[in-house]
Amino acid sequence: MRDIVVFSGSAHPRLAGSISGALGVPLSEVEITRFSNDCLQARLLANCRQRDVYIVQPLVPPTQEHLMELLLMIDAAKGASAAQITAVIPHYAYARSDKKDASRISLGGRLVADLLATSGVSRVLTMALHAPQVHGFFSVPVDHLTAIGVLADHFRGRDLSDTVVVSPDLGNAKTATLFARLLGLPVAAGSKQRKADDKVVIDAIVGDVTGKRAIVLDDEIATGGSVVELMDRLKEFGCTEAAIACTHGLFAGPAVERLSTHPMIQEVVTTDTVPAPDWPQLQVRSVADLFAKAIARIHAGESVSSLFDGVDPTHAPPDARLPLG
Amino acid sequence: MRDIVVFSGSAHPRLAGSISGALGVPLSEVEITRFSNDCLQARLLANCRQRDVYIVQPLVPPTQEHLMELLLMIDAAKGASAAQITAVIPHYAYARSDKKDASRISLGGRLVADLLATSGVSRVLTMALHAPQVHGFFSVPVDHLTAIGVLADHFRGRDLSDTVVVSPDLGNAKTATLFARLLGLPVAAGSKQRKADDKVVIDAIVGDVTGKRAIVLDDEIATGGSVVELMDRLKEFGCTEAAIACTHGLFAGPAVERLSTHPMIQEVVTTDTVPAPDWPQLQVRSVADLFAKAIARIHAGESVSSLFDGVDPTHAPPDARLPLG
Amino acid sequence: MRDIVVFSGSAHPRLAGSISGALGVPLSEVEITRFSNDCLQARLLANCRQRDVYIVQPLVPPTQEHLMELLLMIDAAKGASAAQITAVIPHYAYARSDKKDASRISLGGRLVADLLATSGVSRVLTMALHAPQVHGFFSVPVDHLTAIGVLADHFRGRDLSDTVVVSPDLGNAKTATLFARLLGLPVAAGSKQRKADDKVVIDAIVGDVTGKRAIVLDDEIATGGSVVELMDRLKEFGCTEAAIACTHGLFAGPAVERLSTHPMIQEVVTTDTVPAPDWPQLQVRSVADLFAKAIARIHAGESVSSLFDGVDPTHAPPDARLPLG
Amino acid sequence: MRDIVVFSGSAHPRLAGSISGALGVPLSEVEITRFSNDCLQARLLANCRQRDVYIVQPLVPPTQEHLMELLLMIDAAKGASAAQITAVIPHYAYARSDKKDASRISLGGRLVADLLATSGVSRVLTMALHAPQVHGFFSVPVDHLTAIGVLADHFRGRDLSDTVVVSPDLGNAKTATLFARLLGLPVAAGSKQRKADDKVVIDAIVGDVTGKRAIVLDDEIATGGSVVELMDRLKEFGCTEAAIACTHGLFAGPAVERLSTHPMIQEVVTTDTVPAPDWPQLQVRSVADLFAKAIARIHAGESVSSLFDGVDPTHAPPDARLPLG
Amino acid sequence: MRDIVVFSGSAHPRLAGSISGALGVPLSEVEITRFSNDCLQARLLANCRQRDVYIVQPLVPPTQEHLMELLLMIDAAKGASAAQITAVIPHYAYARSDKKDASRISLGGRLVADLLATSGVSRVLTMALHAPQVHGFFSVPVDHLTAIGVLADHFRGRDLSDTVVVSPDLGNAKTATLFARLLGLPVAAGSKQRKADDKVVIDAIVGDVTGKRAIVLDDEIATGGSVVELMDRLKEFGCTEAAIACTHGLFAGPAVERLSTHPMIQEVVTTDTVPAPDWPQLQVRSVADLFAKAIARIHAGESVSSLFDGVDPTHAPPDARLPLG
Amino acid sequence: MRDIVVFSGSAHPRLAGSISGALGVPLSEVEITRFSNDCLQARLLANCRQRDVYIVQPLVPPTQEHLMELLLMIDAAKGASAAQITAVIPHYAYARSDKKDASRISLGGRLVADLLATSGVSRVLTMALHAPQVHGFFSVPVDHLTAIGVLADHFRGRDLSDTVVVSPDLGNAKTATLFARLLGLPVAAGSKQRKADDKVVIDAIVGDVTGKRAIVLDDEIATGGSVVELMDRLKEFGCTEAAIACTHGLFAGPAVERLSTHPMIQEVVTTDTVPAPDWPQLQVRSVADLFAKAIARIHAGESVSSLFDGVDPTHAPPDARLPLG
Repeated sequence: MRDIVVFSGSAHPRLAGSISGALGVPLSEVEITRFSNDCLQARLLANCRQRDVYIVQPLVPPTQEHLMELLLMIDAAKGASAAQITAVIPHYAYARSDKKDASRISLGGRLVADLLATSGVSRVLTMALHAPQVHGFFSVPVDHLTAIGVLADHFRGRDLSDTVVVSPDLGNAKTATLFARLLGLPVAAGSKQRKADDKVVIDAIVGDVTGKRAIVLDDEIATGGSVVELMDRLKEFGCTEAAIACTHGLFAGPAVERLSTHPMIQEVVTTDTVPAPDWPQLQVRSVADLFAKAIARIHAGESVSSLFDGVDPTHAPPDARLPLG
Repeated sequence: MRDIVVFSGSAHPRLAGSISGALGVPLSEVEITRFSNDCLQARLLANCRQRDVYIVQPLVPPTQEHLMELLLMIDAAKGASAAQITAVIPHYAYARSDKKDASRISLGGRLVADLLATSGVSRVLTMALHAPQVHGFFSVPVDHLTAIGVLADHFRGRDLSDTVVVSPDLGNAKTATLFARLLGLPVAAGSKQRKADDKVVIDAIVGDVTGKRAIVLDDEIATGGSVVELMDRLKEFGCTEAAIACTHGLFAGPAVERLSTHPMIQEVVTTDTVPAPDWPQLQVRSVADLFAKAIARIHAGESVSSLFDGVDPTHAPPDARLPLG
Repeated sequence: MRDIVVFSGSAHPRLAGSISGALGVPLSEVEITRFSNDCLQARLLANCRQRDVYIVQPLVPPTQEHLMELLLMIDAAKGASAAQITAVIPHYAYARSDKKDASRISLGGRLVADLLATSGVSRVLTMALHAPQVHGFFSVPVDHLTAIGVLADHFRGRDLSDTVVVSPDLGNAKTATLFARLLGLPVAAGSKQRKADDKVVIDAIVGDVTGKRAIVLDDEIATGGSVVELMDRLKEFGCTEAAIACTHGLFAGPAVERLSTHPMIQEVVTTDTVPAPDWPQLQVRSVADLFAKAIARIHAGESVSSLFDGVDPTHAPPDARLPLG
Repeated sequence: MRDIVVFSGSAHPRLAGSISGALGVPLSEVEITRFSNDCLQARLLANCRQRDVYIVQPLVPPTQEHLMELLLMIDAAKGASAAQITAVIPHYAYARSDKKDASRISLGGRLVADLLATSGVSRVLTMALHAPQVHGFFSVPVDHLTAIGVLADHFRGRDLSDTVVVSPDLGNAKTATLFARLLGLPVAAGSKQRKADDKVVIDAIVGDVTGKRAIVLDDEIATGGSVVELMDRLKEFGCTEAAIACTHGLFAGPAVERLSTHPMIQEVVTTDTVPAPDWPQLQVRSVADLFAKAIARIHAGESVSSLFDGVDPTHAPPDARLPLG
Repeated sequence: MRDIVVFSGSAHPRLAGSISGALGVPLSEVEITRFSNDCLQARLLANCRQRDVYIVQPLVPPTQEHLMELLLMIDAAKGASAAQITAVIPHYAYARSDKKDASRISLGGRLVADLLATSGVSRVLTMALHAPQVHGFFSVPVDHLTAIGVLADHFRGRDLSDTVVVSPDLGNAKTATLFARLLGLPVAAGSKQRKADDKVVIDAIVGDVTGKRAIVLDDEIATGGSVVELMDRLKEFGCTEAAIACTHGLFAGPAVERLSTHPMIQEVVTTDTVPAPDWPQLQVRSVADLFAKAIARIHAGESVSSLFDGVDPTHAPPDARLPLG
Repeated sequence: MRDIVVFSGSAHPRLAGSISGALGVPLSEVEITRFSNDCLQARLLANCRQRDVYIVQPLVPPTQEHLMELLLMIDAAKGASAAQITAVIPHYAYARSDKKDASRISLGGRLVADLLATSGVSRVLTMALHAPQVHGFFSVPVDHLTAIGVLADHFRGRDLSDTVVVSPDLGNAKTATLFARLLGLPVAAGSKQRKADDKVVIDAIVGDVTGKRAIVLDDEIATGGSVVELMDRLKEFGCTEAAIACTHGLFAGPAVERLSTHPMIQEVVTTDTVPAPDWPQLQVRSVADLFAKAIARIHAGESVSSLFDGVDPTHAPPDARLPLG
């Protein structure tokens, strides 16, 4: 079996360290140079020849810098005769640009997938793409993980009576349904309506939330605006309190302030696909083990999807046929 | 300006005839040969050299035959030095295969997009892709039309009091919202839940339908199973009667029987993106004019998206920024 | 050495079973789904990651269905991170579309080769391409087998006095010459002439057939029309009786009736590259062992061409330099 | 309409001059530099930007030099923003490498087609490819001309009683049949047999030649070996005398000596697709007009195949459906 | 002739405005959106269909942001069916990453060229690439302008007695030689030596500078470190004073302070390929006219190289054969 | 580990033999056929399936013949299912065509890199590219060796007092600096000036050479013209005698005569990247061991760059970060 080499860009070295620790493979060094004209250069400080190279880099702010770092590292690995190059992108932020919702608009989700292929990537390992169709934007194989097992573990063993899982968006309801099933809970969802002026409002709650405690599940929280709006709506519908769970906890701009002071919110739990903000009360569950296991299986030629089926329903959908997205 | 040539495969010559009639360009002939080993061959009987070639072929049953015909016609046009080849695919049926909802599954929506590019297509002109993300599966430019203006015209001028637009699926609710806005109506939606054994049931209706008449809007109706199920649910929730509107009216298998005999259904309206079944009561609104206008604009180098904005809200969203899908 | 996985599409599961049996590798399962809009989906039910995947699918009627199945299975295997994907296509029917014999005509033999490459195939293993030049239509490596050793075995040991090998077409005479040499027989050939109206007639026999028994060798028999015509001509030239041998025995439409009732024809022998018709008198010699040996050699990194040279002249040309097609 | 620019490599400037003269477009200059390390460089001395560029270069000896010149000229035209680049290759010599007739052998016909595409060619205009399947080796459009009308003109008006058209090879018989039909003559063919040691001998003549005068038609004559052998065989079969007609008259090595001294040969006629040898008795009919007409039609977006059908059967098959190869 | 549309990214709207002004074509609007997760999106607000699109964007800091903007604008134009897309990149900063001067290092100059091609660019129009070989990194045509005529104009008409042109680097000496010839001056050059620890020092001056006034010519000045070092060396060698001329005046970090206070430096002149720093004494000569003329010629299908030859030696090398880089 | 197979084209079988000898792997046979129309064909006479194939072929005169041979051998290896194909090109002559120094000129260095990729090469192993930027012309990984350690060994142990290393060209000075450091010597360089009429003259010597003995280091010597000119200049500047060292010793045309009779030249040393001329006094140091070690490391998945760092400064730069070019 070929040797394995793991590198981290500068986006999230802590996660990369956890993954390589769980894998039992030391993190190899990378030298990123910024020239005086602001151009970047990547140099890999470990031999890549005929090796399986894994490069860990979520697309977190400053997103363009981290994307370019990733492309340059892949280019360097290709030029160094790596056997296979897997981009480990725990948060593929450009997945949000997944449709032409105006004329003459860029389609960043597809473009970035093509840029990765051009730079020489052999495979992408990612988690919780914003829409499952984004998988189809890639011309290289994609292994697509889910964090809902890890997030469900956070709530397991608690008193979950009178609790309901709530999806902020109808489009996200499939994942919430899976999550709810892992915890044996009912599910509800907010109904978003797009107003003129590009504003989106939640105007209804589908499912019964009256007198209940909510666990809100979202894939990504950036400024927290729609979560706060959902809280207001849940309160109107008689919901008593809420916990917030999300895979990609960006918490940009006013998000920490908004979420930590909202009277409905008892708790916020997220994963470490992106670096955590300075917010001690935030509950962070690590997905490093999940990524390490996936890498080990990819390397050993074992099935990755089987990581999510079988005996332990806490880590993933019990039925591999269910959509992961 | 280059000359224009329009061909039709054998999938829907009637629509192709209507489009070429509206364009004022005669339909050029194609000779499709089936060899005794069941292989197909296409021969274009009009000069294509340095011309803008349009090939009309929705992917309707027998789908594989029509897809292969289309690929062979594109190949023939490329070999004949066409300047540009536009595949006019009013119904891109493979859009339904848009996600990896099981491990080791094919992604037909992306694969067929790549096959079209390989055969030599320069552009795709289509309507009502099942999910807006499918646009991103194509590496060539896609002009994506909507039929909701044409469908809304059908209802305009009627008494629409106590009427509500209903989307069978939460994922389709954006289009229904646009449609409802064209008619000044409220919107509701069915909430689907995926059961074990791959069965999907509608277990709730989001929005108020009690005592109301429904206009159900769907992108494609095949066997009609989920429409019938939605009818039952609407009846339980107190809805009084329903009209069904859909862009792609395949009406396969038991669909005509099911829909024509259901007591809730007063009317079914569809477009001619696919050939109509033998069902005299079916209301068919033609999209041939819309395709002809789009082709004329593509050929003249005019904006296609502007076909859908501006003064006439009956034919499309009044705001070009709204999603077309 | 990497693990090997063998799948069969629905075209010829019996042959796939024989090949996997001869290989000593169980056939892995595939789930082909046909949606209500007639689109197909393939799901591979065995792990493909880093494995050598072989997919057995001759292009037999319904040819377009089987082609699309094959493309979807390859797409699924690529998405599942297969190390290498070999399409085993015992009968590559589109090879007949190998030239532009009219203006603005499709070139199916090249197009399908490109479609296979687009879907992700790494190599093609096939038998008896209609013309040896078709090999050059593929951008991926092709291993090209011949069945003439297997067919010659059928006649070996019999009384072959006064017997002559006859090729129906002058273009096919090279293979017939090789076949004749394996049996130590002389060779003759029909001279085809293309009439107006796209009709082809055999107007002469090259070589001496008077008072002889013929073994007619063809690569593919579909409707049997040209074989019957050849029989009439052979009879005129004084030939007494004939056996028919062909690699790809499609026997479409009236073929069985025509061949089984013709007074000149004593026997028809073919291989199992395609499923046999319902015709008990047909002699079928299996090429499964040949395919299994080729796969074993591909997998082990051994020469496939050496399968056809060396000590046993019954299975192939004694001189590896001789054309296999 | 875009401007047209015509360049000639150093292979056959005389033909290029005739073509550009017939087109009424002056030949633009090219500067080919040979460096002291024997590398070549091409510089085009006329503006190519947004123009239709035609580069005339048959692949004649020294073939590798002329091929590389052609690739470099195409590269220069691409870098100079040509709108379309057509390689005019009157003799595509690598077409002879069209099959894998030994294991691990190069397939030059396909490789050179791919090299042309890589260098940036948009289209190939050629004549009399050795096998019609070679057309399918190209990924760019190919316009494929035939010289048989020009060659038939040479014999028209003579006394053709007791004359038969003879094809040296059964594989070439289709073209000879077309040629014979243009002159209203019968056709015969030599039957080649491949001996051990890679030697090919003609062992039979198909068709009646006794007491007749032969017009032998071949696509390419290099050393003249097989023509001489055919002469001997024709003599044995009672043929009285022969004229030789071929499209590509290379006449390499001993060819002129062999053909000019053979007692059976009364006349040799060829075209100017390649430069003529020093042989005053050789009859050369120019195809420059044919190439000029094809270029004019390509440039004007008119059908090239129609150049070969219609009223004048002297220049091409009267039925455009007949193979040109 | 097709219509022309010009867009500007956010890197240098002032230059884009000057270019479009000189062209007589209004600048069309672009909407760049930054999402809360820091991803970018570009929307082009003018019709691009069948038009020649020019997008002006030098790669200046923040370089990654501007590069991604450019790629997204190109992607949007491609999706909007632009006929041709020219990236106008007055300063291609990644050209500095042009060699593998360490093992396993990225090659940004080539990678970014490939990313541009992937996003859909048809042509690149740029100025003063750091090394002329970088031209060869692009697979699309590149039009490569020079500013030395514009810079030489700045000095023309002055008293240039006892003046010498100095190149800081031996590798840049060819351009300095051309520049010197335009002014009728001698040339000298610094000899750089690379020390351990990646430090580069100028250790010698080639050519006579004693008692002379220097005009230092460089392609890019970033921090100004090597210019200052060159000044010290020139002073040691007896040079009396210096003017600094450069094409790309980035003046990053301490550059303005360093250059404006150095006692040797009398004047600094640059062009507007990049936005000017806040430095009133800086002399800026515009290259907007040069870019506008190049675009006009590209659009009209006229030669761009001829822009630099002929009668006016002030704007470019008098001999078009001289390298522009 | 996969098996290794080494082939040699006809350019330099002696070097190929030395490399395979040093590797301990026998050279496998190739059959190059030249047809009577001057086309080439390559046949590999050893099994390549799933093997690592190395093909040794420097691009020496007749360059086009050797290039085409190399492309055909790569094509044959690809068709024979080689796992990896490395073109070992000790002298990549087309690297000299590395810039567009005139309008509408071919860029041979990039074109040939693309042709190699098209033919199917996986990696290129080369030495002393004319400019380090040429590395970036390749889309496949390049391992780039240097001969300066081998050349320095030649002089090590001699009396090197009063000796200076001289680079003929300022552009080549980096390599000369490295070479000088290996021998602990100072460095000087000629300053070339391009005259009108495409003539280049050396008009100055940078660095002190008075009363010293020179070791001139160049990458390639073809006709020896610039070396002789440099000798004259060195003599004028007071240099007493010179040794000449170069990596690629082509010695074309008058070179041997010129160099062997020049009074300044005491000795000429080169390597065997190209075949040696008939010149007994020429000192040839073999780089076969270096290539064999590089191949062994490539095959074993070990770092090639580490071949050039570490303990033995005689074979390469002591610091792997230093440029190799």
